[in-house]
Amino acid sequence: MKKHLIALAVLAASGAAMAQSSVQLYGIVDTFVGTSQDTIKSSTAKQQTVVGSGGLKSSRWGIKGSEDLGGGLKAGFKLEQRFKSDDGSLDGVNFKGESSINLSGNFGTVALGRMATPYDDLRNKTNPIGDTDISPVKDTIKAAKADYTDKTDNTIAYVSPTYNGFSGAIGVSLNEDKATGVESSQHTSLKAQYANGPLLVGYGYQKEEAKDKGGKDNTKYNLLAASYDFGVAKLVGGYQASEITVGNVKQGDNDSLYFGVQAPVASNINVFFGLANSKYDAVTGTDVKATGYTLAANYVLSKRTDAYVGYKHIKKENDNTGADLGKIKTLAVGVRHAF
Amino acid sequence: MKKHLIALAVLAASGAAMAQSSVQLYGIVDTFVGTSQDTIKSSTAKQQTVVGSGGLKSSRWGIKGSEDLGGGLKAGFKLEQRFKSDDGSLDGVNFKGESSINLSGNFGTVALGRMATPYDDLRNKTNPIGDTDISPVKDTIKAAKADYTDKTDNTIAYVSPTYNGFSGAIGVSLNEDKATGVESSQHTSLKAQYANGPLLVGYGYQKEEAKDKGGKDNTKYNLLAASYDFGVAKLVGGYQASEITVGNVKQGDNDSLYFGVQAPVASNINVFFGLANSKYDAVTGTDVKATGYTLAANYVLSKRTDAYVGYKHIKKENDNTGADLGKIKTLAVGVRHAF
Amino acid sequence: MKKHLIALAVLAASGAAMAQSSVQLYGIVDTFVGTSQDTIKSSTAKQQTVVGSGGLKSSRWGIKGSEDLGGGLKAGFKLEQRFKSDDGSLDGVNFKGESSINLSGNFGTVALGRMATPYDDLRNKTNPIGDTDISPVKDTIKAAKADYTDKTDNTIAYVSPTYNGFSGAIGVSLNEDKATGVESSQHTSLKAQYANGPLLVGYGYQKEEAKDKGGKDNTKYNLLAASYDFGVAKLVGGYQASEITVGNVKQGDNDSLYFGVQAPVASNINVFFGLANSKYDAVTGTDVKATGYTLAANYVLSKRTDAYVGYKHIKKENDNTGADLGKIKTLAVGVRHAF
Repeated sequence: MKKHLIALAVLAASGAAMAQSSVQLYGIVDTFVGTSQDTIKSSTAKQQTVVGSGGLKSSRWGIKGSEDLGGGLKAGFKLEQRFKSDDGSLDGVNFKGESSINLSGNFGTVALGRMATPYDDLRNKTNPIGDTDISPVKDTIKAAKADYTDKTDNTIAYVSPTYNGFSGAIGVSLNEDKATGVESSQHTSLKAQYANGPLLVGYGYQKEEAKDKGGKDNTKYNLLAASYDFGVAKLVGGYQASEITVGNVKQGDNDSLYFGVQAPVASNINVFFGLANSKYDAVTGTDVKATGYTLAANYVLSKRTDAYVGYKHIKKENDNTGADLGKIKTLAVGVRHAF
Repeated sequence: MKKHLIALAVLAASGAAMAQSSVQLYGIVDTFVGTSQDTIKSSTAKQQTVVGSGGLKSSRWGIKGSEDLGGGLKAGFKLEQRFKSDDGSLDGVNFKGESSINLSGNFGTVALGRMATPYDDLRNKTNPIGDTDISPVKDTIKAAKADYTDKTDNTIAYVSPTYNGFSGAIGVSLNEDKATGVESSQHTSLKAQYANGPLLVGYGYQKEEAKDKGGKDNTKYNLLAASYDFGVAKLVGGYQASEITVGNVKQGDNDSLYFGVQAPVASNINVFFGLANSKYDAVTGTDVKATGYTLAANYVLSKRTDAYVGYKHIKKENDNTGADLGKIKTLAVGVRHAF
Repeated sequence: MKKHLIALAVLAASGAAMAQSSVQLYGIVDTFVGTSQDTIKSSTAKQQTVVGSGGLKSSRWGIKGSEDLGGGLKAGFKLEQRFKSDDGSLDGVNFKGESSINLSGNFGTVALGRMATPYDDLRNKTNPIGDTDISPVKDTIKAAKADYTDKTDNTIAYVSPTYNGFSGAIGVSLNEDKATGVESSQHTSLKAQYANGPLLVGYGYQKEEAKDKGGKDNTKYNLLAASYDFGVAKLVGGYQASEITVGNVKQGDNDSLYFGVQAPVASNINVFFGLANSKYDAVTGTDVKATGYTLAANYVLSKRTDAYVGYKHIKKENDNTGADLGKIKTLAVGVRHAF
């Protein structure tokens, strides 16, 4: 029997008021054909033809819903699984994408569970090609040293309402690993942003603490990021400074700069360009520099479907000697379908 | 594209009669913030702040459906996944909650697959706070010795129709591990109950047999349980006697008593109290006693959403010397949303 | 809240034309009770009572959809999970059944991801009892030596349009394991078929190459298969020749013949009979012969639900001495429900 899920709202009486609630089954299948080579991970890696998942956006399916509780109060949830559309395998834990419940009202939103950090929200909003396999930002920074954790478990988060364009969010993730003489590790993430018409500017901070075993291990990330939509093109960019500490001893600084342009060059064609640069300045040992760029375009077939082509190139070098430490090269021609 | 699942029935012609069939996507997201400490599992465990899943009811999603086959015959199925809403991870096998198909009619219901045992049905119906992380019953009995298996694989089950309030059910789970000189292990579970208006009283029996390797290992559970709804409060309670045998030699008796009150103290506030006591009387070795209680309340925000607070406390002791063998303490403040 | 998924199409404007798109949640739960014994796998295996999954068709659930993009172009996707309905466990990777996206039009269909091979399409169309646990074909061939891989990851596939009954399909699966001095392994599969009214006749070829480490390991499968629907009965059958090569040295030939009848003996009763014979002619070592048959019948309860009984028997022998090398015997009485 054929059953189509359709676009209607469920009306249900709740207390004095009529409450409107909905549940959605949704997802994205994004698969590409291309070539790939990563000599940063393995110096003997060969260029080869691949079928890959998540060229423009990670493949996923999920269930989400919201319920109007009356009096301005709402409940919502989101369960999102990530999978590899090229081989059908699960990508990470069952609901890696999100597993959250929230209550929202005039006071803002309080959410519990696994979710993207506030820091990640700001980085994504200013990312040249978003949450994708061919965006240069994350891989360039990881090639230099390490990038932040984008989603956290056991999280308590608060998102403020927006006042004249200003808003903020904070999330604390508890690792629940307290033991004799060892404090529990945790991640703390926050952002403050100003959004007004075409402009977004924001600041983000994320501190990732490992267990305190008589000497803190942690990494602190600071991000200043902005975007401006000129209509003919949207510019995005950011500066991220991170500092790595092991046993209370600073190990090094990892500073990164990224920039991007998103331009609708025709009614159904968009061009994306992104550039990223990341340096790891080690207190002792080798300094590393990584540089990456991506050029991509999509052809919009419908609101839900597009075809795309993209090329990502990342180069890692010894920042003292200039010696080549490997490259990542990915060419992708793919189709993305949202449901 | 937004798709809402809506409340309508699917009409389909089937044989001579019009058959009504439905498929539902459903679930519960239940997440809490709290503190937790379990010195029974590890004597050095510290109290720590946690985000947890399933405070009032295990987090789950599933697909279920039924089809009217005409002539009083119906087919039904249920596939239910359990997950940890605090970190998005899968809880147990894919469809741990249930993976069943059934045919029902005047003769009763015959079901095949993975499902809750008849014994578990009776225990759940008389459980102070149901299938939850903060109910004291299961954890108190497990602290003393061992509690029954609630769901079984490879099960053939029969549920009788109800005659004047009387009904019964039996389930046999086959472990499919027969080998030379070894009989297959299996679980057998049954219940008989009488339900009439506010009263429910029932008897349950479950025998969990391990492989017969020339000497039976098994545990037998007997349960007498009842509930009565006075309107201002519902009382529930039960007495469970279990006997553990290894190699045809009795190891000990594990007898448990539990009791609970569920009271709607205001139009949208319910209070729950549960108490459990379990003793393990070993033929040789240490006798153990465990005592647990839970006090909880929920605030009903809508038919689908509530907020709750609960505290569970379990104490394990050497029943001969009174020596402290650890405690479990859980405080939870959470939100539960059904879809 | 009860939500039923209903049979309506989603209408959405897309470019100049009205596009019709749909998303379906679908599945099959097929569970049986029976007896099973496999002395080919283990010579000491005992006959035992089992509850099993997929007697007539593998248990599964999935999400699939299609979107009309206008101008004769369509986008489609399918995500299908296989699970064991007897114990709720996942069968293989998350979307083992299929994880594909496709674009189709006058030019045919191009698909990417994990999917059944074209060779498998032809085998399934001529299989006495389809994709089931009690079909004799696959298990008889595997008992003799080895059968083809039915679904492949990282696949690029093309299915031609149909011209006067003729059509073809090809799929290439990339294993993405190229390394220094080693070519990437890959599977190539194709079929050509002619379908006209009651007749289907087709040819299939599948080459499964392992990594080239200075000496090719591969297995080649050739299939000639046909079906003819006489109305009172449908006849199906095929001849498969496979050749196994290790390090450029031929190891042996595995030739198989299968035949089947599907007959609707009453308005709601169908009878199925299948027979398979497979010989492995080794260049050096023991020659093996396997013979299998299945007799089954289903009783149609509705379009979506049937009950069935089936018996499968497979015998493996030393083809030189006639020595018994074991048997597989499966008796299944089950229920299958599609949603």
